[in-house]
Amino acid sequence: MEPRPVAASRCTLSRIMTLLDANLHGNIHGGVIMKLVDDAAGVVAARHSGGRAVTAAMDEMVFLVPVHIGDLVHAHAQVNWAGRTSMEIGVRVDAERWDEVGEPLHTSTAYLVYVGLDEDGSPRAVPPVLVDEDDALGQRRFREAEIRRTHRLARRDAILRSREG
Amino acid sequence: MEPRPVAASRCTLSRIMTLLDANLHGNIHGGVIMKLVDDAAGVVAARHSGGRAVTAAMDEMVFLVPVHIGDLVHAHAQVNWAGRTSMEIGVRVDAERWDEVGEPLHTSTAYLVYVGLDEDGSPRAVPPVLVDEDDALGQRRFREAEIRRTHRLARRDAILRSREG
Amino acid sequence: MEPRPVAASRCTLSRIMTLLDANLHGNIHGGVIMKLVDDAAGVVAARHSGGRAVTAAMDEMVFLVPVHIGDLVHAHAQVNWAGRTSMEIGVRVDAERWDEVGEPLHTSTAYLVYVGLDEDGSPRAVPPVLVDEDDALGQRRFREAEIRRTHRLARRDAILRSREG
Amino acid sequence: MEPRPVAASRCTLSRIMTLLDANLHGNIHGGVIMKLVDDAAGVVAARHSGGRAVTAAMDEMVFLVPVHIGDLVHAHAQVNWAGRTSMEIGVRVDAERWDEVGEPLHTSTAYLVYVGLDEDGSPRAVPPVLVDEDDALGQRRFREAEIRRTHRLARRDAILRSREG
Amino acid sequence: MEPRPVAASRCTLSRIMTLLDANLHGNIHGGVIMKLVDDAAGVVAARHSGGRAVTAAMDEMVFLVPVHIGDLVHAHAQVNWAGRTSMEIGVRVDAERWDEVGEPLHTSTAYLVYVGLDEDGSPRAVPPVLVDEDDALGQRRFREAEIRRTHRLARRDAILRSREG
Amino acid sequence: MEPRPVAASRCTLSRIMTLLDANLHGNIHGGVIMKLVDDAAGVVAARHSGGRAVTAAMDEMVFLVPVHIGDLVHAHAQVNWAGRTSMEIGVRVDAERWDEVGEPLHTSTAYLVYVGLDEDGSPRAVPPVLVDEDDALGQRRFREAEIRRTHRLARRDAILRSREG
Repeated sequence: MEPRPVAASRCTLSRIMTLLDANLHGNIHGGVIMKLVDDAAGVVAARHSGGRAVTAAMDEMVFLVPVHIGDLVHAHAQVNWAGRTSMEIGVRVDAERWDEVGEPLHTSTAYLVYVGLDEDGSPRAVPPVLVDEDDALGQRRFREAEIRRTHRLARRDAILRSREG
Repeated sequence: MEPRPVAASRCTLSRIMTLLDANLHGNIHGGVIMKLVDDAAGVVAARHSGGRAVTAAMDEMVFLVPVHIGDLVHAHAQVNWAGRTSMEIGVRVDAERWDEVGEPLHTSTAYLVYVGLDEDGSPRAVPPVLVDEDDALGQRRFREAEIRRTHRLARRDAILRSREG
Repeated sequence: MEPRPVAASRCTLSRIMTLLDANLHGNIHGGVIMKLVDDAAGVVAARHSGGRAVTAAMDEMVFLVPVHIGDLVHAHAQVNWAGRTSMEIGVRVDAERWDEVGEPLHTSTAYLVYVGLDEDGSPRAVPPVLVDEDDALGQRRFREAEIRRTHRLARRDAILRSREG
Repeated sequence: MEPRPVAASRCTLSRIMTLLDANLHGNIHGGVIMKLVDDAAGVVAARHSGGRAVTAAMDEMVFLVPVHIGDLVHAHAQVNWAGRTSMEIGVRVDAERWDEVGEPLHTSTAYLVYVGLDEDGSPRAVPPVLVDEDDALGQRRFREAEIRRTHRLARRDAILRSREG
Repeated sequence: MEPRPVAASRCTLSRIMTLLDANLHGNIHGGVIMKLVDDAAGVVAARHSGGRAVTAAMDEMVFLVPVHIGDLVHAHAQVNWAGRTSMEIGVRVDAERWDEVGEPLHTSTAYLVYVGLDEDGSPRAVPPVLVDEDDALGQRRFREAEIRRTHRLARRDAILRSREG
Repeated sequence: MEPRPVAASRCTLSRIMTLLDANLHGNIHGGVIMKLVDDAAGVVAARHSGGRAVTAAMDEMVFLVPVHIGDLVHAHAQVNWAGRTSMEIGVRVDAERWDEVGEPLHTSTAYLVYVGLDEDGSPRAVPPVLVDEDDALGQRRFREAEIRRTHRLARRDAILRSREG
C-alpha cells in the first residue's frame, strides 16, 4: 500500500465548554475531553485509512490543567504510526481562555489505537505513515509511538505473569 | 486517615446505547464509553475521598468487543488503590444484548487516576483503601495497580530519555 | 406459549442527575424520572415478550421524595403480570445521595402497561409470567397488578357513566 | 385566597418529534411524551399557584395512537381542580402528521397532581379553580377530577387491605 | 399549480428556555432562537410545498428584547410569498414571562427563503400563495416580501459593483 | 478607545455533523448551521469588545451548498466593522467531506450585529476595528459592512413607508 503523509489526515475539532460539560465545581469532566479526543482521532483514522475504523485502545491520557466553562477547546489530532491494520493517533488538547492573553494552555495529550475494518467488520490493511526524513518532530512521534507500544505489551505481560505467580 | 473498604464507594451506571451514540456503521463511539467510564469513576472517587476529585489520567482503556445500538451497557467502578492524594479507579464495562442469552459481554476495562482536591483546588489527602486479607481479587487489583503505576513512570522515563538522546 | 420467569427480563438503569434535569430550584423534573422509568420498563417488555412492545398506559406514578442534582438514580423494572397481549411492568425508583450513609431513598413507584406488537404493528401474544409458588413478593405483585387492572376499568366506567348522566 | 380562572394558566407546548425521540421501529418513546406532558403541566401549575410547584403524582396516562418521527406534537395543559395545596392538571396530547389533512390526532390524555411549595420546600396553599357556571366542559373536568381522586384513594386502600389480608 | 391559502401551512412551535440555552449572564443565545425559527419555518415550507424543502437564506433577523431562562417562547411561522421554486417564510417570535401579566413580548422577526426540492435534490415548482383580497395583513406581508426581495438583490448588486470598482 | 486589530479576536469552531443535526433526507438543518455561526460570532464579539455582548441582528445568511451528515464543518468568524456600541461579525462556513480531496466547500456566509453590554445590560462602547492600510481584504470587508448597514436602514425605511402609504 502507498504510504500516506501525516498532513493528509490531520484534523482539529474546536468547541466552547458549557455548563453541560462541567461538574458542580465548574471543572469540565475528564470524560467530556475524552469524547472530544476520540471524535478528532476518529476523523484522522478514517481519513488515513480511507474508510471505516474503530477505537481499539486509548493508551494513556493525562490531564495537566483543569479546563473551565467558557474555554474554547481545540483537539488537534494526527496519525503518529501505523502497523499492518492498526494506527496510533496522537491528540493534543489546548484550551483558550478568552479573557487571558497569550498562548493557549496545553491541557491534555492522548494516544489512541484505531483498527481499520472492512465491510464485514474484520481488520483490513491500512497505509504506512510517510514521515519526511527532515521532519524531526514527526520522526520523534513515530519513535515514541513504538516505545508506547513496547511498554503496553510489557505491562500486559507483567500483569499476566503476576496473576500466574 | 481511616482506611475505607472498597465496597463503601463501589458504583454501577447503566444505560441503553442509542443512535446518538453510534457512528454511521452502528458501532458505538469509543468516546461514548470513555465518557460513561469517567462518570462512574468520578462517583467512586468522590465517595472514597469524601469530597471533590478530578480526573488526572486515564491510564489505559482497551475495547475488546464492539458495542451496538440497543445494548444495555453497565460501567462497574471501584477504587483499586490509593496513595497520599491520588486514587486508581478500575472500571469494567459490560454489555447486555437483549436478544442474546447468557452472560453480559465484557467489552472494556479502564484504569483512571483521580486526585482529591480541597476548596482552593489544591490536592488533599485521601483515605487508604482497605482490602481484606482474604479478598484475593481485591489483593490482586491492588497489586496490579502498583504494576501499572510502575510501568507508567517507566514509560514516561523512557520517552524523556529518547528525547534527550 | 411457554411462561417466562420474572428474573429473565429484570433490568436496572442507573444514572446521575445533572443541572440539565432540574428546574431552577434544583429539583429534578418529574418528567425526567418518568422518561427513565419508561426506558427501563421498555427493556423489560422487550425482553419478556421477546420482541417489539410499546407503552399503552402509565397507570400511576407517585413521587414520594424530591430527587436532587447529583443523586445517583436507579430504575429497577420487572414484569408483574401478563395477559394475552399486554403486560404490567412495575418500576421502583431509588436515589442514592453520595454524601449520605445508609440505604438509597425510595422516591417513586410506577406501573406501566405495554403491548407486544408484530411486524405490522398489530398486537401479538406475549408469554405468561411464571411466579414461583413460594415467591411471596412475586405473588403479591401479581395480585396487586390485577387489583390495579380492576380499578382502572372501574374508573373509566365511572367517568363514562358520569358523562352520560 | 382569590379563585383563579382556568384560562389564566393554560399552556401549550409544541415540538417536532425526531430520530432522537424514537425507538428503532420509528415509534416515539412513551417516556418522551411523558416528559413533554410534565413540562407543560409544570408551567400551568406554576402559573395557577403563582410560584414553585412539584409533581406529586402522574395519575394515569393512556397512549391511544402511536406517535411517529416528524409529527408535530402539542401538549395542551390546564388546571382541572385544586384542593388546599394540590392541583390536578389535565394534559391532552395531539399529533399533526404533516402529510395528512384534517384534524390533529388525539394521542394521549394525562392527569398529574402538583403540590405548591414555599421557600423551604413545604406545601403552601394554592388558589381555588374558578369554573364558570355555564362552562359545561370545565364543570365536567372538575367533576371527573374528583372521581379520579376518589378512585385513587380507593385503589390504594384496596392494595393496603390485600397486603394485610 | 393550485394556489394554497396561508392558513393551510401555518405552524407554531413553543418551548421553555433552559440553562442549556443561555450564556453565563442568563441571556438566551441568539443561535438558539435562530434554530427554533428555522424549525418552525421548515414545517411551513414542507406543508406549503407539499414535500421536501431546504433553507436557502435567512434574510434578516432582529433581536428586539433579550429572552431569559424560564421564558415560554413561541415561534409563529407562515408563508408570506412564493415564486416559482422558492418561498419566503416569516416567523414571529414571542416570549411569555410566567410571572408577568399581559401580552407576550415580541422578541424577534425573521424572514427565511426556502426552496422546494425533488427526489434528486433539484429545485421543483411550489404552489403560489393565495391571499384573500380582503386580508389586509396578508396583502401587506406579500408586498413587504417583494420589497425585501428587491433590496436583497440590490444589496448583492452593490457589493459586487464595489468589488469591481 | 484603543482600536483593536481583527486578528486579536478571530475564532474558528469546528465540529462533525451527525444524525442529530439532519432532517430525514440527510440534509443538515439550516438552523444547526445558524447556531454554530452564532456561537463563533459570539466568541469574536466577546473578545473584540473585551466583555459581554449579545446578538442584535443576523443580517443575512445564504446557504450555497447543502451540508451532509459526516461533514467536518468550520465556522470562521471575525469582526468586520465596529461602530460606537455595535460590531458586525462576519462568519464563513466551510465543510470538509472526508472522502473528497481538495479544498473545503464554501457553504455559507453570514453577517451578524452584536452589541456590547455593561453590567446592567445597557449598551457600552466597543473598540474601533484596526484594519491595516495594505490589508486589501480587510479594507473590502469594512467597506461592504457599511454597504450592508446602509441597505439594512434603507430596507426598514422602505417597509415603514409602504405601511404608511
